[in-house]
Formats: sequence, structure tokens, C-alpha cells
Amino acid sequence: MERGILVHVQSQNRLLLGPGPSSVHPEVLKAMATPLVGHLDPYFLEVMADTQSMLRQVFQTENELTLAMSGTGSAGMETVFVNLLEPGDKVLICICGVFGERMKDIAVRSGANVLTVEAAWGQPIEPEDVQAALKSSSGVKAVAIVHAETSTGVWQPLEEISRIVHDYGALFIVDAVTSLGGIPVEVDRLGIDACYSGTQKCLGAPPGLAPVTLSPRALDVVRNRKTKVQSWYLDLNMIANYWGEDRFYHHTAPISMLFSLHEALRLLLEEGLHQAFKRHAQNGDYLQRELQAMGLQLFAAEGFRLPQLTSVIFPDKYDEGKLRKQLLEDYGIEVGGGLGALKGKAWRVGLLGHSSQHRNVTLLIQAMKQMMGI
Amino acid sequence: MERGILVHVQSQNRLLLGPGPSSVHPEVLKAMATPLVGHLDPYFLEVMADTQSMLRQVFQTENELTLAMSGTGSAGMETVFVNLLEPGDKVLICICGVFGERMKDIAVRSGANVLTVEAAWGQPIEPEDVQAALKSSSGVKAVAIVHAETSTGVWQPLEEISRIVHDYGALFIVDAVTSLGGIPVEVDRLGIDACYSGTQKCLGAPPGLAPVTLSPRALDVVRNRKTKVQSWYLDLNMIANYWGEDRFYHHTAPISMLFSLHEALRLLLEEGLHQAFKRHAQNGDYLQRELQAMGLQLFAAEGFRLPQLTSVIFPDKYDEGKLRKQLLEDYGIEVGGGLGALKGKAWRVGLLGHSSQHRNVTLLIQAMKQMMGI
Repeated sequence: MERGILVHVQSQNRLLLGPGPSSVHPEVLKAMATPLVGHLDPYFLEVMADTQSMLRQVFQTENELTLAMSGTGSAGMETVFVNLLEPGDKVLICICGVFGERMKDIAVRSGANVLTVEAAWGQPIEPEDVQAALKSSSGVKAVAIVHAETSTGVWQPLEEISRIVHDYGALFIVDAVTSLGGIPVEVDRLGIDACYSGTQKCLGAPPGLAPVTLSPRALDVVRNRKTKVQSWYLDLNMIANYWGEDRFYHHTAPISMLFSLHEALRLLLEEGLHQAFKRHAQNGDYLQRELQAMGLQLFAAEGFRLPQLTSVIFPDKYDEGKLRKQLLEDYGIEVGGGLGALKGKAWRVGLLGHSSQHRNVTLLIQAMKQMMGI
Repeated sequence: MERGILVHVQSQNRLLLGPGPSSVHPEVLKAMATPLVGHLDPYFLEVMADTQSMLRQVFQTENELTLAMSGTGSAGMETVFVNLLEPGDKVLICICGVFGERMKDIAVRSGANVLTVEAAWGQPIEPEDVQAALKSSSGVKAVAIVHAETSTGVWQPLEEISRIVHDYGALFIVDAVTSLGGIPVEVDRLGIDACYSGTQKCLGAPPGLAPVTLSPRALDVVRNRKTKVQSWYLDLNMIANYWGEDRFYHHTAPISMLFSLHEALRLLLEEGLHQAFKRHAQNGDYLQRELQAMGLQLFAAEGFRLPQLTSVIFPDKYDEGKLRKQLLEDYGIEVGGGLGALKGKAWRVGLLGHSSQHRNVTLLIQAMKQMMGI
């Protein structure tokens, strides 16, 4: 009888240095194994309230609507688009990688009228391009941009674009899936109206939840829709009533995932946001210097490189797929392959959350040198 | 600084006898704490394939498209409706409780033309009513029904209705959220075209995944849609390519949840489906006999009572809310309150998965007698 493997006995011992999930802290794993409680248990409601409070600190916001959606980061993306947009609404999407493309796909499925601003892969979006697009098309309801483009490793500056977006009276949507917890995501200071993330990157929890925060202005838009949100599962009007004071039952929350997010946030705030950003910056810098010292080229434009996600190009003489397989099999280290135009040509190395450690960089570089005969 | 609680240290010790989540086996909790691997790791792909194979056994189907969606049971419901229905499609929804109502809400949001057949709460849907509805309205694409209505405790017979649905050439959609693993869900024998469930009921895993299976005929419908599925996150055309041989990246799977589902399915098949059904039947019968011996009335019509979910009515002299709170605080036992018309009048007692044990019934009955002075 096909029965398979005893997962927890035979699981592999992987060091996760890809674009996510990242390896998580042992205490976070322990939290996953907490015996279950009911989703309306007074104890669990306390865990939820506490999680919301910690999420507000990490998002650097006072937003009342701050919660974790019951799906992965992409569900967070879809949540923001299907709640803010109604059929026919104009939305401007900034695209310079896979996740900008995904935003467009989701916005189109929401029935929105989608305009785009693009930049070459490896480059950030230019503020003047956003300004020009907004100038040439009136009535844009929202502008959406990826803060940390996981397909290229580009760190998108937000401040000037946010100013332009608000000058035109639009809502500012920011994808913080790979940025939250690794670099500053200053929701209130930057005037971000809707921001979403995932738990498996710099927050250091397993994949399965999508933190989301909405400004009071964005929440008003959701509360005053003319049409029902097309997704029942992601309808923030109902979900806010479960996370809010009313505690109305909507769906059964993924209890264990919330236990683990709670513990991951606790550890992050215990370290301190500032210190976590410094750690990500230092380890990213160490990795990028070492890769360049090996003669390899970084893909993201200089000055716009994320410390937590590095795209590195291999010269034609190396077979990146073979090296990546060898790294996994011989060293137990996972890195990511290139996406889109970078497929077969690049690695994406993540130093996300608990995976961002000096010794992990040292090990990876040494393993690469051994494999590449450098 | 608001920092909160160390979840895994202070968590409560609850016996979960509500409508879900259920208490899970210690080995399933251990599986949750398995160190993470990547979502494209060869080892993880093996875990996924193995999980699919075990899900097919539990659904009693050969369906190729059998997988776990990255959301809770309600996401499974939404998956089936948004993938099978296109705007304007006629769908007939059978309603005799909260979860039938939810199907209607989701189908309306999918742009479908929704017809309904209703039965009083506590009663099952009558086959002749389905037949009359299909006779009076041509071109119905699908008929949807809840197998185990969690709001009432009714066990819906499916065989005759399935025959009628297929006589009229419609697809047969069955909600097996509370039935799968507790009573037989014979997808192939009954000609069910689309079936979904949740992990936190009789499958005995934490909440967070939704097993879904589609017949080849239903899959054809999805593959040949004229319009894109309105949800990117739940689009089976793409998700099937990640779970299938191609292994195309779609979204980051909730790794840990899949580890736990794998272990829960392994334990269920080790016990044997037949034995698990027998255990649920015996413990449900024991509970229902004891409740009636205490002079309490069961809500679901005789002959249609689920063994795994029992609705019991309290006479006016008892304050069910106060008793339920006392049960939680003094005994650490969770049961569910009534929904809809049963609010404030009834309990819903779940004996789901690992929670379905003879000693749990003995304890609950004794606790009730103490509290009620019987």
C-alpha cells in the first residue's frame, strides 16, 4: 500500500538561502506544534489581538485594519486588489519584474481598467514615469508598486512616488512581501494606503499567512463599495468583523500558523526592527562583495540592491542549474534559479529573516568556490 | 512595550469538541514543527505527490486533479465555484443551513445565475425538490449540496440526488468539509464531479488547507472556460500545473501545513477508512443516546443525524451560553454554540477526527450532568 514517509522523521536538513521560504528559528517551529485551541476561544482572540499589535509595529503604522489573511503572500496581493478595485476602476501598475506582472494579472481579473508603467528588469521604476502616466490619464484610483522585486533583487525607492501618487489623489498600494522585516516599510510616514506581505520571507515564519494593512482612507473605499467584493474568502468587510471587536465568525482561522507568526514577530521585535535591518544590510553587503570578488556580476542596478535578495549572473561557462543541484545535494543548501529572462542564467540568493546570518554567507561562498574551482 | 505572550509556553490545554477545529494527534503536531524545505525541493515534491495519492484514497476517487488548496475549507468552496462557473451560468444550490447559504453567496459573487432548493433547518434536501427544480429550468450547469451541514448536524443522502443531477446533464458539486474522514465520501461511485473539504474536521489536521478533487468532466469544464477564473490565487488551471508533472511555480505552498496533512492522512489510512467511520459512528451514537437520556432533544431529523456533529437543544430553563462558558473555563472543553435560528438555544458538539474518542464523550456527559445538576 502506498503510504509514504513519516514526514517529521525523514525530513531533510536544508539551509534555505533561496527567495523564500527562509529557514525559521527553532522557537517558531515549536510554536507551530502548540496544541490547537478554537478560533473563537478567548485565549486565541488574545493571540490575534497581540499579533495585530505587533504587525502594526513592524508595518510602522497605527492603521486599525492590520491583520493576517488566511493565505500566502499572493493571497495578500489579491486581497488588496479585489477589495479596493471595482469593475471599470482605473489602476496604474508599475512593472519591472514577475511580481509587478502578477499584480497586473490580478487587477485585470478584478475587472479593473489597468494602465502600466514599466522599467527594464534590474532597474527601479522612475518617479517621472509615474508622474507622466498620471498626468496623461485622469481619474486613476490607485497606483501599485513592488517594494522589493523578488525576481530581480531591486530595492524600489518609494518616497517620491508616494508624493506624486497623493498629488493626484490616488491610493498608494505597496507590495512588501520580501521587504517587511528586512528593510524599513514605513507605512504611515510614506503615506502607503494598502500594504501586504508574506510570512515566509524576512518575518521568519513558515508560509501560509499574508499580513495586510489598510489606511483609514483605503478602508473607507472598501466600506463604501457599490459592488460586493468578488471573493467571499478575501472580503475584508467580513474579515475585519472577525478580527475586530465584533468577532463575527467568518472562516476558521489557521490557528497554528497564527501561533507561529506570533512567535516570529515576538522574536523580531525582541531583536528590534533597527537591529534586524542592520543585520540584513550587513550580511547582504558581505554576500554581494564576496560574489563580486569571485568575478560574478550582480543583476540589480547599483544603488538599488536589496540586501536580503541578490540576483547574481553566471558567465556562460558555468551551468547554473547543475551548480544549484549540486549545492542542494552535496551541501543541503537551497538557492533560487532565475525567473523570466534570467532563467538558466542567474541565481537568486535570499538572506531572509533567520536565514540572514554571517556564517550562512561564509558557508555559501566557500561551497561556491569549491564547486566552481575558484 | 506590548509584546505579549510566549505562545507555546502558555497555550491552553483544550479538548476541542466543537464544530472544528478538532484536537489533533500529537504526531500531527510534531509534523507541523518539521524544519522547512523549499516549495520546489525534490523532497517536498515527493511529499506532495504522496499527499495527493492519500487524498485520492480518502475521497475514494481516481481523479487526477486531487490536491490541497492553500486556504481553509471555505477557500475550497470558493475554488470549486469560481473555477466551474462563468458569468451567467445557471447553478442550483441546495440550502438547509449556513453552509448552503455560503455556497449561494459565493456563487452569486462568481456572476452565476443562482437558483435554490431549500429545506427546513434540521431536515435534509428532498430529491424530488431537486428534480422539480431541474425540470422547471433548463440548462442548469451544476447542482451543489452540502454533505454534512455543520450548522444543523444533518447527514444529507447523496445517491438519489446524484442520479437526478446526472439525468439532467449537470455537474454535481458536494461540500464534504465536515464529512470527509468521518463518514464515507464516495466520489467516484456516486459520480461527484467536484468535492472539497477542510483539514480541521475529520481529517484531524490543523485548519489551513482545503483538499479538492475534480472529475475529468469537471476538469474539462475548467480547461475550456471562455473567461479567466476571477481569482488568480484559486485558479486551478495554474495550480494544477504546480501539483502536476510540470511543477510550474505558482505561489509558495504552505509547507508546514502540508507536512501536517500528510501525517494526518497517514494516520487515518493506518487506522483504515472503514474503522475510522465505525469509530465516528459508535461515538456519535453513544453521545446522542446519552444526551437523549438526559432529556435533551436532538435538532437534526431522526434518520439523518451525523455521528460526528450533533446539534442539541436546551430547554428554556438553561442558559446555554453560560453553560458553554463554564464548560470551557472549568473543564477546558470547547463545544460550539448554535448558528442562525439556533443561536442561544443549542450546542453543536463535534466528535471529529482524533476528537472522536469514547472517553471524550464520557467526560463531556459527566461534565454536563454536574453543571446542570442532573
